Amino acid sequence: MTTLKQSLFEQLDQIVLIDSHSHINPYSAASKDLGDLLGYHYYTELAHSSGMPRERIEEAGLSPREKVGRLFGFLGNIDNTIQWSWFLELSKDLFGFEGDTIDAGNWESVYELASQKMAQPDWESQVLQMSGVEKVFLTNDFDDTLSGFDTNRYVPCLRTDDLVFHLANPVVRQRLEKCTGIVPASLKQIKDGIDKLFKYFCGNQARACAISLPPWFSPTKQSDDSTVAKVALNDLLKHGLDAQESSKRAMANWVFWKIAEFADEYKLPFDLMIGVNRKVYPTGVFQGQDLYDSRLSLIQYGELFNAFPNLPFPISVLASVTNQELVDYAWIFPNVVTHGHWWYSNTPNYIRHDLRGRIEAIPRNKQIGYYSDAYKLEFILPKFRMFKRILAEVLADEYCSGRGWSETKALELGRQILRGNVESIFKI
Amino acid sequence: MTTLKQSLFEQLDQIVLIDSHSHINPYSAASKDLGDLLGYHYYTELAHSSGMPRERIEEAGLSPREKVGRLFGFLGNIDNTIQWSWFLELSKDLFGFEGDTIDAGNWESVYELASQKMAQPDWESQVLQMSGVEKVFLTNDFDDTLSGFDTNRYVPCLRTDDLVFHLANPVVRQRLEKCTGIVPASLKQIKDGIDKLFKYFCGNQARACAISLPPWFSPTKQSDDSTVAKVALNDLLKHGLDAQESSKRAMANWVFWKIAEFADEYKLPFDLMIGVNRKVYPTGVFQGQDLYDSRLSLIQYGELFNAFPNLPFPISVLASVTNQELVDYAWIFPNVVTHGHWWYSNTPNYIRHDLRGRIEAIPRNKQIGYYSDAYKLEFILPKFRMFKRILAEVLADEYCSGRGWSETKALELGRQILRGNVESIFKI
Amino acid sequence: MTTLKQSLFEQLDQIVLIDSHSHINPYSAASKDLGDLLGYHYYTELAHSSGMPRERIEEAGLSPREKVGRLFGFLGNIDNTIQWSWFLELSKDLFGFEGDTIDAGNWESVYELASQKMAQPDWESQVLQMSGVEKVFLTNDFDDTLSGFDTNRYVPCLRTDDLVFHLANPVVRQRLEKCTGIVPASLKQIKDGIDKLFKYFCGNQARACAISLPPWFSPTKQSDDSTVAKVALNDLLKHGLDAQESSKRAMANWVFWKIAEFADEYKLPFDLMIGVNRKVYPTGVFQGQDLYDSRLSLIQYGELFNAFPNLPFPISVLASVTNQELVDYAWIFPNVVTHGHWWYSNTPNYIRHDLRGRIEAIPRNKQIGYYSDAYKLEFILPKFRMFKRILAEVLADEYCSGRGWSETKALELGRQILRGNVESIFKI
Repeated sequence: MTTLKQSLFEQLDQIVLIDSHSHINPYSAASKDLGDLLGYHYYTELAHSSGMPRERIEEAGLSPREKVGRLFGFLGNIDNTIQWSWFLELSKDLFGFEGDTIDAGNWESVYELASQKMAQPDWESQVLQMSGVEKVFLTNDFDDTLSGFDTNRYVPCLRTDDLVFHLANPVVRQRLEKCTGIVPASLKQIKDGIDKLFKYFCGNQARACAISLPPWFSPTKQSDDSTVAKVALNDLLKHGLDAQESSKRAMANWVFWKIAEFADEYKLPFDLMIGVNRKVYPTGVFQGQDLYDSRLSLIQYGELFNAFPNLPFPISVLASVTNQELVDYAWIFPNVVTHGHWWYSNTPNYIRHDLRGRIEAIPRNKQIGYYSDAYKLEFILPKFRMFKRILAEVLADEYCSGRGWSETKALELGRQILRGNVESIFKI
Repeated sequence: MTTLKQSLFEQLDQIVLIDSHSHINPYSAASKDLGDLLGYHYYTELAHSSGMPRERIEEAGLSPREKVGRLFGFLGNIDNTIQWSWFLELSKDLFGFEGDTIDAGNWESVYELASQKMAQPDWESQVLQMSGVEKVFLTNDFDDTLSGFDTNRYVPCLRTDDLVFHLANPVVRQRLEKCTGIVPASLKQIKDGIDKLFKYFCGNQARACAISLPPWFSPTKQSDDSTVAKVALNDLLKHGLDAQESSKRAMANWVFWKIAEFADEYKLPFDLMIGVNRKVYPTGVFQGQDLYDSRLSLIQYGELFNAFPNLPFPISVLASVTNQELVDYAWIFPNVVTHGHWWYSNTPNYIRHDLRGRIEAIPRNKQIGYYSDAYKLEFILPKFRMFKRILAEVLADEYCSGRGWSETKALELGRQILRGNVESIFKI
Repeated sequence: MTTLKQSLFEQLDQIVLIDSHSHINPYSAASKDLGDLLGYHYYTELAHSSGMPRERIEEAGLSPREKVGRLFGFLGNIDNTIQWSWFLELSKDLFGFEGDTIDAGNWESVYELASQKMAQPDWESQVLQMSGVEKVFLTNDFDDTLSGFDTNRYVPCLRTDDLVFHLANPVVRQRLEKCTGIVPASLKQIKDGIDKLFKYFCGNQARACAISLPPWFSPTKQSDDSTVAKVALNDLLKHGLDAQESSKRAMANWVFWKIAEFADEYKLPFDLMIGVNRKVYPTGVFQGQDLYDSRLSLIQYGELFNAFPNLPFPISVLASVTNQELVDYAWIFPNVVTHGHWWYSNTPNYIRHDLRGRIEAIPRNKQIGYYSDAYKLEFILPKFRMFKRILAEVLADEYCSGRGWSETKALELGRQILRGNVESIFKI
């Protein structure tokens, strides 16, 4: 890195963060052993892709240590990946590992090192402290109790995939009934149930609702008593998972639209994570089965964006080929906000191209630079660092060198993208 | 910039330009006040996107100064954008503004400075002179008179969107009748009317015809007396704007094909600007309502390119994901020419990637590097400079460093792309 | 280039290569004159695109020298292209040409120089030696005899396009009958015929089968006695080339699936080259008529990848917009391997973006960096060099500078991508 980039990076790295999307379990936020870390789907799916049979690590009764040992038979195949660099960086910075390589020859010493650290009663706070993270958004099931943890530190977020896409499943309807006390047997009852969920979440410091969406989804305005939705619901109630695909899709559209209405009413930003096909590789490892069809357009959401002009939609797209549309929809629609670099687009090549596309064309108050998407706190540090290095590079190249901005001015832009907009958009 | 890039840029910046596409009004080519400049849709739509209500600036009877003042309540949100950098650069180079920042605190002094300059009777010529621009292509309505301005400086271009996509509108048909003296009540009459337009434009130094096209458009060969087109025209004549969408599309196809035939006959290059959906955000600010669906392919134009082998099609694509197709169609089809970096793809990140894709794979005599697309002359300078900086970078990196070319040789390639091909392709 | 990049490049350039895909004719692998080299479709189609009438070079009875002379009337229009740089580099490094430019003024001296070299009886071996190439994969018609050349040097590869997409053509069926002794008049007979081909190719050191696929292709599982396929085959047998398009596609699907089954059985990796539309420009020069529709998704191959978990699919995609899907399918599916940079994506701008996307996210043992796709041996050198320069740049930037890797470690990754994986995946 040049001196300027390095200097910008170091200053960006001092900013205390709010992580606006994660899958952290607030009851067990940090890892208990290296198995928790290397059980992250990135490592298991990449090791599997490189040749490791799934059974090697999904065998029942495997101890964490044994699982990690087996993984290291294959992790040498992925030491080129950016995902591997996350693990290496966190091992150095959080555990104090001092080597340059972790492989089949020395993993046990890192296992021990990690276990000692993780056994410390305040490990969770240490990680947050070392990572410079103040608050972390969760991904809560709609029937989560939201109790027993500090909602000031772990900010609730209502995840709505189950309601929208899995209402055909009797178990989902039972969960909805159980947590709301309302039998979801009519459109009215479902709407009332969703209302209760929003009330509950907002009463418990929720700051967003969120959903991941398949490429084919294209929501249209739905009346409360849509005949199409009524017929679809009847099919779902009668046939459950065997209902017609068309009924499931009609119901998905209706529920989605009602959720958007409540998000609007409760002023809860609605995170859209657009573009994933689930279970494309059904025999893949746990959480390593989803892929996508990149042929989608944000024009599918045009009606939605027009219908809810006051509802912020922080949007993540799965494929980088959709990023320019995201840039341009955020450039035109006041309620469209860019939100991080998601999953398959969360590698430097795509972050760089996508960030450059965004930073130079979207109002600066509408760009949320990054979120960790982490399942365990330890990953927040290296994932954000990856982003901050690229952000520093772009600020140095395009703003300081390219436009003659001072380092201070560039840093202020970086700060707004990294932190300021999370506060203003999610009202924190 | 490195010394080499800087040197290349400075030499490229000396080349006197012909701007092959603009929206300049030849009767009022330069701005009269800062309101003209900051009324450019880029500023109003970005300010609106950043939080400014549309009504703030579209209020009736607002003075230019008041409008500018209101905009500056929000322009701080867009000082990161490349569009803002255009305004800053032109303020420095055309008005002599000497600061680094124009904001709510100092805009009035810039307003004054600009007003003084713009009040000078030869301001238009000064701007052209300072910008190094010799000729500027216009975007003329089909019924423009083309009189009262110097067609040697402001080169007429027949814009055909209204004829192709809005013939259902009685007003458009009346305009066609009025300017040609032919009632457009049959296919034959419409064809005769279009013939008259071409004759008139070519008799008045027109050098191109042009059209912007929606993503779904996929023209096919049309006979003069197509039955489908006849039926469609009857629907349009009978129902006007309420005609079937299918009739409108059939008529669009027919008119488009006839226009291509006349362009071929009159040897007038046919600029295709591919990929825009109009009014995706109908409550956006003026000219800030259009977006797009990037799912299109140039294969939709395969039949057209094959049917008119001698007609040059200078092509602009709205989305960068279409650029590689453009590169490859220009690489294979002799009549496909790349034309500038359009609208949402006219920011450095996309220009860089798209230019690099083109310059290394398309014959050098088929690349028109850039056009301003400007509504006011003052924007030609900073927009072309943005392009020239990137062109200098690519020439330095790929040709001088990468292939050992001399600076002179690289500059010659740059000159051909910036100016030479405009002359040869548009026959100037 | 920086010193580090240069050093990495030089070391990468020492690695003896196996070229995993070419169109080399093993009976005439090297060129006999400059006409062979400049007859490569890249030069003829680009010259044609730049303005040269096809007839200028496709005239019957034209001598090689005359053809080259005519081409040089137009090659100045393409001296900016990377394809031209291949010719210049090979002229320097293989023929000893010492200038910087080859043009209409000096081409005859290069013609002479080349002719002298090519007249040497061991020219073929010299080229391989100077190019550092040990083995070259061929593209064999299914009825090639595979005799009369050294299959250790020229590795057979069963190309299956004709069987899959042209079985309606009686000539193709006759060829199949002739080389297998089985009349392809029923599904069973076709399957038996294909079995024989696999047996023959595998008995003759074939290491892959391969196919190029149009954008619309989306294979589904096919039973041996599929009724749909039976009906389709009857249509093909009865109507030949005039059979219904739907019959041709049904048959294509069936034959493709059977080929995949045999590839699986015979453990022959199945190269998929995805995305080309043939004859989009039917009046283009020889081999310069194909283009594409980039709207495709690898999800079209999801069923295939799931059905054959043990069959490696080295995949090339024609358009760079598909590359991120390729990265991610290779990241998830163990049997998906990335394979080179194909045709329209084989220029530095797209190689750079696509390679960076791959190298940081796919297990290192699943990336085959490059193949030449060459028709004549002389092109292997400059095409691989182009790739190696970019690979050196990425290794230097992302691994040495970015992650602190030693040069040795980076080089090891480069070696695996350039050569090691060809050995392991194709079992050489």
